[in-house]
Amino acid sequence: MTRSNWSVPETEVVQRVHERLDGDRTDVLATIVDVEGNAYRRPGAKMLLDEAGEGVGSITAGCLEDELLVAAESVRERGRPELVTYDLMEDDDDVWGLGVGCNGIIDVLLEPLTDAYRPAVEAFDEGRSVAVLTVLEGGDGGDEGDGRDRRDGGDALLARGDRAYYHPDEGLLATPDGEPATAWPDELTGPAADLAERGRADTVELDVSGTQLEVFIDGLAAPTELVIFGSGHDVGPVTELAAKNDFRVTVVSFRGSVDLQARFPDADATVTTSPASIDEAIDLDDCTYAVVMTHNFVDDRLTVERLLDSPVPYVGLMGPHKRFEEMVEAFESEGTTFDDAALSSLYTPMGLDLGGGSPYQIAHSIVAEVLSVSNDRTPDHLRTREGHIHDRVSVDSTDDIPSQ
Amino acid sequence: MTRSNWSVPETEVVQRVHERLDGDRTDVLATIVDVEGNAYRRPGAKMLLDEAGEGVGSITAGCLEDELLVAAESVRERGRPELVTYDLMEDDDDVWGLGVGCNGIIDVLLEPLTDAYRPAVEAFDEGRSVAVLTVLEGGDGGDEGDGRDRRDGGDALLARGDRAYYHPDEGLLATPDGEPATAWPDELTGPAADLAERGRADTVELDVSGTQLEVFIDGLAAPTELVIFGSGHDVGPVTELAAKNDFRVTVVSFRGSVDLQARFPDADATVTTSPASIDEAIDLDDCTYAVVMTHNFVDDRLTVERLLDSPVPYVGLMGPHKRFEEMVEAFESEGTTFDDAALSSLYTPMGLDLGGGSPYQIAHSIVAEVLSVSNDRTPDHLRTREGHIHDRVSVDSTDDIPSQ
Repeated sequence: MTRSNWSVPETEVVQRVHERLDGDRTDVLATIVDVEGNAYRRPGAKMLLDEAGEGVGSITAGCLEDELLVAAESVRERGRPELVTYDLMEDDDDVWGLGVGCNGIIDVLLEPLTDAYRPAVEAFDEGRSVAVLTVLEGGDGGDEGDGRDRRDGGDALLARGDRAYYHPDEGLLATPDGEPATAWPDELTGPAADLAERGRADTVELDVSGTQLEVFIDGLAAPTELVIFGSGHDVGPVTELAAKNDFRVTVVSFRGSVDLQARFPDADATVTTSPASIDEAIDLDDCTYAVVMTHNFVDDRLTVERLLDSPVPYVGLMGPHKRFEEMVEAFESEGTTFDDAALSSLYTPMGLDLGGGSPYQIAHSIVAEVLSVSNDRTPDHLRTREGHIHDRVSVDSTDDIPSQ
Repeated sequence: MTRSNWSVPETEVVQRVHERLDGDRTDVLATIVDVEGNAYRRPGAKMLLDEAGEGVGSITAGCLEDELLVAAESVRERGRPELVTYDLMEDDDDVWGLGVGCNGIIDVLLEPLTDAYRPAVEAFDEGRSVAVLTVLEGGDGGDEGDGRDRRDGGDALLARGDRAYYHPDEGLLATPDGEPATAWPDELTGPAADLAERGRADTVELDVSGTQLEVFIDGLAAPTELVIFGSGHDVGPVTELAAKNDFRVTVVSFRGSVDLQARFPDADATVTTSPASIDEAIDLDDCTYAVVMTHNFVDDRLTVERLLDSPVPYVGLMGPHKRFEEMVEAFESEGTTFDDAALSSLYTPMGLDLGGGSPYQIAHSIVAEVLSVSNDRTPDHLRTREGHIHDRVSVDSTDDIPSQ
């Protein structure tokens, strides 16, 4: 596998899934369902494996990929999803193993890529969050064929491999065909909504009529929108690094003469407008992060004025704090004031204090700040953080996943 | 100018200077000497302009580049350095200007690129820090020709445009020909050493026999070395982002079968060795930062053990803290202990707490941490930082630089 295919941003993995769905080959999609111990990626991490053994995305730092290829070939041949457990802990006395590249127990869902996955990538492409629900252990304890038969009856039960989607914006739990998923317990909608919005994955166990139902819920959050106001050269490195970090980047220019898409090829969208017409061009909601770097005082001021009066949770402004103080004077002379809640969304000078001064170092510090704010983190050293690095989700998870 | 030429890492600007010195054309090198007010780059920022008007590097976020091209053409024709001042503040009542892309007063040194600059790039290429000293105002108050004549006499005086180099590793102030720069005051060596090591630039004013000597000192610090132990796919994004942030990256692998340079094209060097032979392969000094991510417990442990016993100021270790605690048990069972000073250099889990989990997000957080530690910063939001974003150097600077 080539370097560039392994380390693609997550958004590109989903894009690739969409492309391959439209193709005539059957790829195998691998998704981490559960990890125990020390693993590089967390549940929800994905890798797409084609028939030639080429992969896009990453499940581990390279330790499992060969084994995955073999398992994927078997899944492709059988045409059915499988849950495979890789135990990289060699024995109990030597918890951290010898000779292997990773440590921990990793459960991976392998599935032939079929149209049953299309609702996920279509929602993602439309910028809508979605949760993909997969039955790991059916309420009847039976296997796939068994369950499918019984679902047609009035006392429908779910079977291993059954799938549904939850769309938070519609509040709808649906089958891959888009029909209401009436066979699925309503209790799943709460965790599905939470995991979809947060882009996290976890396994939920439910008791259904006295038997255990185990469902893997993979939340695909809509990519976080980053809107960059400005069209100077310094917008380039910010766009590039933000795209690598899975932001969906829109560059907004107030200068009509620039070919924005050619200048900022990493941008997902470019818009030319005026400060007075921002609202017509951009959706300023509470999932949109904004960076203001037009280098023009009046343009910056009009943009910041509009952003501080919007639900946008992060408004980064380039320049020294004194420059913003000048803006405040201009606001006040117009009778405009902002309360503390609005001002708490303003970051100026924007960026984390990393000490760098080159264009890339400045961009690195800005993107690091947007990442930390969008993930609700205090950007300190991880070594000082208590507890786990990764967020733990609030729903119950199980350790009793059947292994290979 | 193309996007990629503008936002190149600083190290690539110096590399380009070297290439163009070896060519047969005369480029013009622009260096920021002083900024007042609100400027994107700080003193020492460089841009190289060729005869076709193409530039590499950046002085501003795009606001001055057209004017610079005109001035560079004049400098190329006259064959002499010039100090040009750009006043982007339109008038005192409207400090932040209207319609212009930047604000502030920027002094730029423009010089035809000649062999007089070669000692700087050669030192930089060798990984040695160096300071480039340029007389802005001569001790005799005269112009260049005037000064050059008098320098031949016993009562040597310096003239505008005269140049010397300070090599901290040799403690030597030298002319571009490599001779001792006897005409230059010894008082310059202190600030030159400081600025060279820190990679900062400033202007120093001295009183020489009753007249003012004004010298711009441009410190080119050797690129900070980042040594990455590991050869998994996840090393790729760290290498790529570190190189963009001006680190000189060496990838060290303990697996002989991998073509490291092909796998990590952004690495400046690759080394295959064993944990027992690290010292023979790598210079572990106090300017070297280390990241340990072999994903192999024993390899990681042996590497960390060696690094904690070296002057390396930063040892980043991938994985949860519990994994390091297991290492400590292994160290202790061998009778090896580390004091608090050694352990203070250890960062595990490595990286800043930005909340991301994709390969690029993990790499972004690691490189952000190395940047902050190498620049001696607390990686908080810049908006909470008191005082200036950029370091101020400790030597006196002047605001009285002659303008265009």
